[in-house]
Amino acid sequence: MIFNKIAIIGIGLIGSSLAHKIKETGCAGEIALYDSNENVRKRANELSLGVVYDDYQGLLKSADLVILCTPSGAMGNVAKEILPFMESGTILSDVGSVKGAIIKEIQEFLPPYIHFAPAHPIAGTELSGPDAGFANLFENRWSIITPLENDNAEYLKAVEKIQEFWQKMGANVENMTPERHDLVLAMTSHIPHLIAFCIVTTAEDMENLTESEVVKYSAGGFRDFTRIAASDPTMWRDVFLLNKDAVMEILGRFSEDLTALRRAIRWDDGETLFDTITRARRMRKEVIDAGQDSDKPNFGR
Amino acid sequence: MIFNKIAIIGIGLIGSSLAHKIKETGCAGEIALYDSNENVRKRANELSLGVVYDDYQGLLKSADLVILCTPSGAMGNVAKEILPFMESGTILSDVGSVKGAIIKEIQEFLPPYIHFAPAHPIAGTELSGPDAGFANLFENRWSIITPLENDNAEYLKAVEKIQEFWQKMGANVENMTPERHDLVLAMTSHIPHLIAFCIVTTAEDMENLTESEVVKYSAGGFRDFTRIAASDPTMWRDVFLLNKDAVMEILGRFSEDLTALRRAIRWDDGETLFDTITRARRMRKEVIDAGQDSDKPNFGR
Repeated sequence: MIFNKIAIIGIGLIGSSLAHKIKETGCAGEIALYDSNENVRKRANELSLGVVYDDYQGLLKSADLVILCTPSGAMGNVAKEILPFMESGTILSDVGSVKGAIIKEIQEFLPPYIHFAPAHPIAGTELSGPDAGFANLFENRWSIITPLENDNAEYLKAVEKIQEFWQKMGANVENMTPERHDLVLAMTSHIPHLIAFCIVTTAEDMENLTESEVVKYSAGGFRDFTRIAASDPTMWRDVFLLNKDAVMEILGRFSEDLTALRRAIRWDDGETLFDTITRARRMRKEVIDAGQDSDKPNFGR
Repeated sequence: MIFNKIAIIGIGLIGSSLAHKIKETGCAGEIALYDSNENVRKRANELSLGVVYDDYQGLLKSADLVILCTPSGAMGNVAKEILPFMESGTILSDVGSVKGAIIKEIQEFLPPYIHFAPAHPIAGTELSGPDAGFANLFENRWSIITPLENDNAEYLKAVEKIQEFWQKMGANVENMTPERHDLVLAMTSHIPHLIAFCIVTTAEDMENLTESEVVKYSAGGFRDFTRIAASDPTMWRDVFLLNKDAVMEILGRFSEDLTALRRAIRWDDGETLFDTITRARRMRKEVIDAGQDSDKPNFGR
């Protein structure tokens, strides 16, 4: 047992997966759950995910860990709302896919007696909601901890407990600065998702192609973009807006590179195309060598 | 038995998969194989894929079906080279991922006594070469036949035999005009591949990100782009150059759409982002409903 009472706010894919895994490992005395949506609370109750509360007061009483599992854009407001009900010494954490902006927002009003240790588990599927969760979601995935610049002994102990917690969840833990996290994730997750969302709508807008034609022949590559593009709209809207700088920077580079390929096609420059494809192919080998591939896609966030 | 002797030119993923399946079904009296690369011929022999010939003369003697399985860009030249050795009434087919340009090239010199019935099986993996082939590659995949405008009775019979052949290979057969094929495939296969090639090289060029960092956290979406990007450089260079018009048209639209999303991010236009993601998500449902999804990706070409 690492915590006496873990309070989870937001019972979606991540929140419910955490509840399943905490239950399985027995690492908390109580799993306390809350969601702003009444139907979700009801469903969490039916699924026996833990003790479901209808208000913050009951939820947070004696909780020694609070994890924000709402969409990233709501975390600042939720943190502000729950502050009056949090007891001194409580550890606050989150699972947001963006770190810099969330930390900045929460740090503005966070009192020193609450220890904020932000985290981001890179795990997910294209499904969402309380029914989507399962205990093994975090197994062998990375969970990145982005500690604040604070070398207070009690704070460092809180960070250590969060690391221990994520290891219990089955994840491999790595520390990073928030800035580094946001850059790396913009490249490996945010931009791939933005591109997938974009190409699917481009296909929908082709007035000389029917949707059923596109779907019928989607095994040619398009299908796999639709899988990435199936993720939660609220979550992803927030990610793009909160990680604006890194996303814009990489998007600018990608657009330049794509324009260069377009030019190579226009001018029959087979050499540039061949070299680009050859380089891209090499990266694939490294992904496989690093054991980062699996037959069954498990999309992170 | 549909054919007495099928000659396959080009023993890569598709050529060797055809050889495996023809053998399994016994739909040809002889499987005759040729590849311009001596090592590939040697390997095909070791794999017992069929009778491997070192020249066109032996390969094509008494062959009643010849299938071009070379990269698309080489098909015109190969067709010209083999013409002197092809007997009257022989059916010529191919497996090229582009149809309009290949047909135009071959029609220029094709005599009326050779029946050209072009085809494109939408099946593939990210692997290539004679060892990559397997008999079930075409199982339940689409094979698109794009017949020439020719209502000669003997020609129509040749097209029917090609349809029958692909059904024997396990594929679902559909007829289409070459123009339609090239537009549909540009959207469902060529553009997704081009984008995947592009984003992987964009990531490689990020001077403030190491390759191992990108690979390590690639489960967030990037990994799945590297899988699409692992395909054969020669084949894909040819596809982009031969299907230039459709690829450029869709690439133009995609770039516009991506610029609009970039603008939405810059101006904090959450509504546009939310609507786009919601639309993209809907398409996913249709792919699943159409039975076009599978856990194990099988990329077409």
